[in-house]
Amino acid sequence: MYRSHHCGELRISDVEKEITLSGWVQKSRDLGGMTFVDLRDRYGITQLVFNMDDNEQLCSEARKLGREFVVNCSGIVRERSNKNPNRDTGDIEIEVTSLNILNASQTPPFTIENDTDGGDELRMKYRYLDIRRKPIQENLIFRSKLALETRKYLDGQGFIEIETPFLIKSTPEGARDFVVPSRLNPNEFYALPQSPQTFKQILMVAGMDKYFQIVKCFRDEDLRADRQPEFTQIDCEMSFVTIEDILQTFEGLTKHLFSSMKNIKLSEFPRMSYDDALALYGSDKPDLRFGMEFHELGDLAQGKGFSVFDSAESVIGIVAPGIADSYSNKDMKKLTEWVQRPQIGAKGLVYVKLQEDGSIKSTVGKFFDDEALRTWAERMGAAKGDVILILCGETEKTRKQLGELRLEMGRNLGLMKDGDFKPLWVIDFPLLEWDEETERFHAMHHPFTSPKQEDMDKMLSGDHATMKSLRADAYDLVINGSEIGGGSIRIHDRALQSKNFDLLGFTKEEAEAQFGFLMGSFEYGAPPHGGIAFGFDRLNAVMNGQSSIRDFIAFPKNNQGRDMMIDAPSPVDNQQLDDLHLSMIPKD
Amino acid sequence: MYRSHHCGELRISDVEKEITLSGWVQKSRDLGGMTFVDLRDRYGITQLVFNMDDNEQLCSEARKLGREFVVNCSGIVRERSNKNPNRDTGDIEIEVTSLNILNASQTPPFTIENDTDGGDELRMKYRYLDIRRKPIQENLIFRSKLALETRKYLDGQGFIEIETPFLIKSTPEGARDFVVPSRLNPNEFYALPQSPQTFKQILMVAGMDKYFQIVKCFRDEDLRADRQPEFTQIDCEMSFVTIEDILQTFEGLTKHLFSSMKNIKLSEFPRMSYDDALALYGSDKPDLRFGMEFHELGDLAQGKGFSVFDSAESVIGIVAPGIADSYSNKDMKKLTEWVQRPQIGAKGLVYVKLQEDGSIKSTVGKFFDDEALRTWAERMGAAKGDVILILCGETEKTRKQLGELRLEMGRNLGLMKDGDFKPLWVIDFPLLEWDEETERFHAMHHPFTSPKQEDMDKMLSGDHATMKSLRADAYDLVINGSEIGGGSIRIHDRALQSKNFDLLGFTKEEAEAQFGFLMGSFEYGAPPHGGIAFGFDRLNAVMNGQSSIRDFIAFPKNNQGRDMMIDAPSPVDNQQLDDLHLSMIPKD
Repeated sequence: MYRSHHCGELRISDVEKEITLSGWVQKSRDLGGMTFVDLRDRYGITQLVFNMDDNEQLCSEARKLGREFVVNCSGIVRERSNKNPNRDTGDIEIEVTSLNILNASQTPPFTIENDTDGGDELRMKYRYLDIRRKPIQENLIFRSKLALETRKYLDGQGFIEIETPFLIKSTPEGARDFVVPSRLNPNEFYALPQSPQTFKQILMVAGMDKYFQIVKCFRDEDLRADRQPEFTQIDCEMSFVTIEDILQTFEGLTKHLFSSMKNIKLSEFPRMSYDDALALYGSDKPDLRFGMEFHELGDLAQGKGFSVFDSAESVIGIVAPGIADSYSNKDMKKLTEWVQRPQIGAKGLVYVKLQEDGSIKSTVGKFFDDEALRTWAERMGAAKGDVILILCGETEKTRKQLGELRLEMGRNLGLMKDGDFKPLWVIDFPLLEWDEETERFHAMHHPFTSPKQEDMDKMLSGDHATMKSLRADAYDLVINGSEIGGGSIRIHDRALQSKNFDLLGFTKEEAEAQFGFLMGSFEYGAPPHGGIAFGFDRLNAVMNGQSSIRDFIAFPKNNQGRDMMIDAPSPVDNQQLDDLHLSMIPKD
Repeated sequence: MYRSHHCGELRISDVEKEITLSGWVQKSRDLGGMTFVDLRDRYGITQLVFNMDDNEQLCSEARKLGREFVVNCSGIVRERSNKNPNRDTGDIEIEVTSLNILNASQTPPFTIENDTDGGDELRMKYRYLDIRRKPIQENLIFRSKLALETRKYLDGQGFIEIETPFLIKSTPEGARDFVVPSRLNPNEFYALPQSPQTFKQILMVAGMDKYFQIVKCFRDEDLRADRQPEFTQIDCEMSFVTIEDILQTFEGLTKHLFSSMKNIKLSEFPRMSYDDALALYGSDKPDLRFGMEFHELGDLAQGKGFSVFDSAESVIGIVAPGIADSYSNKDMKKLTEWVQRPQIGAKGLVYVKLQEDGSIKSTVGKFFDDEALRTWAERMGAAKGDVILILCGETEKTRKQLGELRLEMGRNLGLMKDGDFKPLWVIDFPLLEWDEETERFHAMHHPFTSPKQEDMDKMLSGDHATMKSLRADAYDLVINGSEIGGGSIRIHDRALQSKNFDLLGFTKEEAEAQFGFLMGSFEYGAPPHGGIAFGFDRLNAVMNGQSSIRDFIAFPKNNQGRDMMIDAPSPVDNQQLDDLHLSMIPKD
C-alpha cells in the first residue's frame, strides 16, 4: 500500500496514528540534529521529521533526498511544537519510521512554486513539471468542476449530451479547416469540426429537443496570442424556442456556474442592442465594470470654426472622472501618443480639463470658450475634477478608437476590478456584413442564422440595400468585455436557407454539395430552433479574472501551433503518405 | 410561445386547462365527423381532436396534415371517453382551438416507428429521421445519462476530468493513425490520438493523482462490422496505486452504473487469470452467464488406439446439458458442419450422448466402451440426458474452436439471458506476445505496461525464453463475453521503459523520437501509476443487451468509414492542398 492518507489530510485529531504517505519532496531542511522534509501531493503538504539521535541511518537517507524525489514513508503523527497556521496540516508532523525512494528526480529546470522562474516555452516543454505548480493545478481542477456543474445544470433542464462526429466534411466557408486524408477513400478528406453547428441542427430536426455537448473544436488559423488551434465549447441547441427562452436558459446556466463555483450571485443580465453597444462603448463586447459611456458632441462642437471637428463624421467624447488635477500635461501627452499609435490610429486627442478650482483647461480653447465647453460638460454629466476626452473622424473608426481609449482609461484608473463580474447580452446583430473588398456579403454570425421574424419577407424579396438593414435573431453573452458565447435562432426553412446561401455568394451547386444534407433535412419536418455556444476556455479564464486561456488548458500549443512537450507536428513515414495517396511538395 | 407543455406531460389533473403544444404528426385518423391526430415530441405523444361540427375549417385543416408535419396548436385539455392505458397521456386529449403548421414534411423514406422498414444505409443517410424513432432516441438518452453518472461517480472519488489534446504526434506503433497535415509547419503532420495514453501518464508525473476523461479516440483500421474509426473511451489513470486499488475503484464504478441506470445490484466481480480463462473457456473474454467449462480428457482418452486423439496435442470437452434426447442425428450433423466451417476450422466433432434411458451413443464407440465413456462423464460432471462435445488438435486452436462451440451451444440453448449480467476481471496477462511471422515481440496490452513486480529483474536481465514467460500487471473487465475495458500498472522507470522498447524492436532513436518526452518525464520524479479505459460505446450496448454499438452513436460511419448523411469524406479544393504543401497521387 502506497498510502493510508494523502498529504493534505492529517489533523491534530490524528496524533499518535500510524500512517503511510507518498508524494514529492517539496523541500528539505537540516536543522542541527533534525531534518525536515515537506512532502507534497495534489491535496497538500505534510511535514516529515527525521531525528539524527533517534535513527541516524534514516535521517542520513532523508538528507540525500533531492527536490521532486518521489517518496513513500510510514510513521507516527505527532503534534508540532511550532505550528504553521497557513497550512491545513500545520498542526502536525510525521515522525518517520521507514522511508522508501520510489523514484529519483533530476533538478527541475525551473522552480515548482506558485511563482516560477520558467519562461513560457520552457514551461510548455516541461508541462508535467509546470502542472505540479499549485496555480496551474487549481486551474485544471476548476475547469473539471466547471464542466461537471455545467453538465449537471443542463441535465437538470432536460438537455441531452450527444457526441457529434469529429471526422466530418470540409466546408471552405468560415475559418480554415484542418483536413484528415482518408485511406479507405483515396483522394478524399475528412475535416475536423470548427463547431458541431450542422449536427446540432440535425439533432433538432431529429427531435432531440434539447442538445448540449462540451466539445473540442478546431480552426486552422494563423495563431494570434491566446488563440489555440483546438479549443473547447459548451455547445447547445433547443427546439420550439424564441430568443427569450434561450437567453433565460443560458442566463440561468451562467448564474448557476458563478453561484456554485464562486459563490457569487449575479443579478439579472442587462441587454443591449448591437447598435447601442457600438454607439455607447465603441465595441460589441463592452466591459460594463465601469461607465464612461460615449457622448455624441457633433451638434455642440461642429460649425464653430474648428476644422478638425467640422470635417469629421462624428465627434465623440468620454468623461474620465477625477483626474483633472492628477493628470499632468505630460500624462496627457502620453495619452495622446497612446491613441496615435498605429494599433489605435487616432489622429489626435482633444481634451477638456474641468479643474478642481473651477477653471477649464483645454486643447481647443482657441475655438471654444468656457461657456461652450460647459455645455459639453453638462451634456456629458462631467463635473469639477473630471477630464473630457474627445476623438473625431469617420464614425466607425472613431468609435473603435474611443472604445480602446475607454478601456485604457479603465485600466489606468483601476476601474476593472478583480472579483467584479458584469455580464451583458448584446442582441439584434445585423444579419449580413458587406465586405467592400470582395464585394460580397459575409454572415455576421454564420450562414444558418435566421433574420428576425419581421425581416423574413424583406430578405426573400428585398433589394441589395435592404439586405444591409436586415437584423438577425442573434445574441452574444459578454462578461467584463470578453465574449463568452454567442448564438442565434436558426433558419429552419429550405427556401430561406437557400436564399441566404445565394446572398453569401454560394452557387446552387456549392450550397448543395456542402450543406445539401441540412437543407434536405428541412424538408422532413424541421422544427423552429436556436442555440448558443460558450467558449469554455475563455469562460474559465474570465471567471478567474485571468486574461490568458493557456493556463486553463492542460497541454496548450504555442503560437506556431506546436506542442512543445511532445514536439508535434512532426514528419511521418513515407509509407504512411503512400497509403494515403499523398505526396509532399517541399516547402520553398 | 411555442408550447406551455410538452407532449408527454398532460394528465387527468390538467383537464379544462388551456394549453399550447408543439410537435410532429405521428399519425392522423378521420373517424366520421372527428379527426384524431397523435402529436409527438421527445417526451411522449398527446392526442389532438378536431370536430367537424364544432369547427369545420380547423378540422379540414387538420385533415391535410401529413406524417411528420411540424405543428403548433392551442386548445383545452379534455378527459377521454376512450382511455389508452398504454400511454402516459392516455387519459386526456386536446380539443384544439387553433392550429399552426410550422413546417411541412415530405413522406419519410421509412416508417418512424419502433420497428422500421428502413435498411441500415437508408437509416444512416436519413439519420435525422432514424433518431426520431423511440429506440434510437432512448439509446442516446441512456448514453447521456450514463456519461453523467460516470462523471458524478468519478468526481466523488476525487478524479479530475482533464482534456488531453487531439492534435498530437504520429507513432506508427499499434494501429494506424489518422494524420492531420499542418499548414503552419509545412511537411509536418499531427496525428489524432488512438488513446490519451501518454498524456494521462504525463498527468500522473504532473501530480494530478487521479485523472479521467470521457474522450473520443481514433483508429484508421480496415473496418470490420461494429468497428468505428472514431469511438469513445472512459479513460482513467491513478497514482500511487496497486492493481487492487484500480480493480476496486472501477468495480465500484461499474456497480454504480448498473445500480443507478438499471437498478441492478451486481455482487463482487470474480477474478480469473488469463491462463485459466483460456483453459476453461478458450477465450480471454468468457461469457459467464452459463458454465459449460472445458475439461481436459487427454489422460483418459489418449493411448487407446484412436489415432485422431492420439496424434492431438489436446483433447478437450464440454457438457451440453439436457439435449441427449432432443438433439437428433441431423442436429448433431449440423453441429459438426458448424465447427468444420472455415470460420471455426475444426476437423471434426466427437460426441457422447448420455441418453435418458441410460444408454450411451457415441461417434467413438468403436474405440471406447461404455465404461470408458462413463469415466469421461464422471470427470466432466455429465449426467443422464447430457451430451459431451469434444474437439482435439493443437491446444491453442482447439481451445479457440471449442470456445466458439461453447458460445454457439449457449445461444442455441438460450443460456445467454437478457437482463443477466456477469462481470469478470481477467488478470495476469502475459507481458509480451511472440509473433512467429515477424519474429518479434508485440506488447500484449501496450508498450507502457509494467511487468509484475516479481518479474522486473527477469525482464532487465533475462534471456529470450524468459521474456515469453513474463507476466504483466494487466487486467480486462469482461461482461457477458464482451471486453468492456482494460488497463495495467505502467512502467514509471526510464531504464525499464527503455528495455521494453528494445524488446519490442524499437531502435534507441525511434524510441527517443516517438516517446522521448515520456521517458524524459520519468527522470523528474514519476510516481508509480496505473489505469484503465472502458469502451464507452460497447458499455452502452452491453448494458442494454444489444450487440451493435452503432445504434448508441448519434452519427455512426458505415463499413467504408463514410458518413452517409453528410457524404464525408469528400474531395477538397486544390487550393487547400497547396496550402498544406501536399499533392494527391491518383488512385489506380
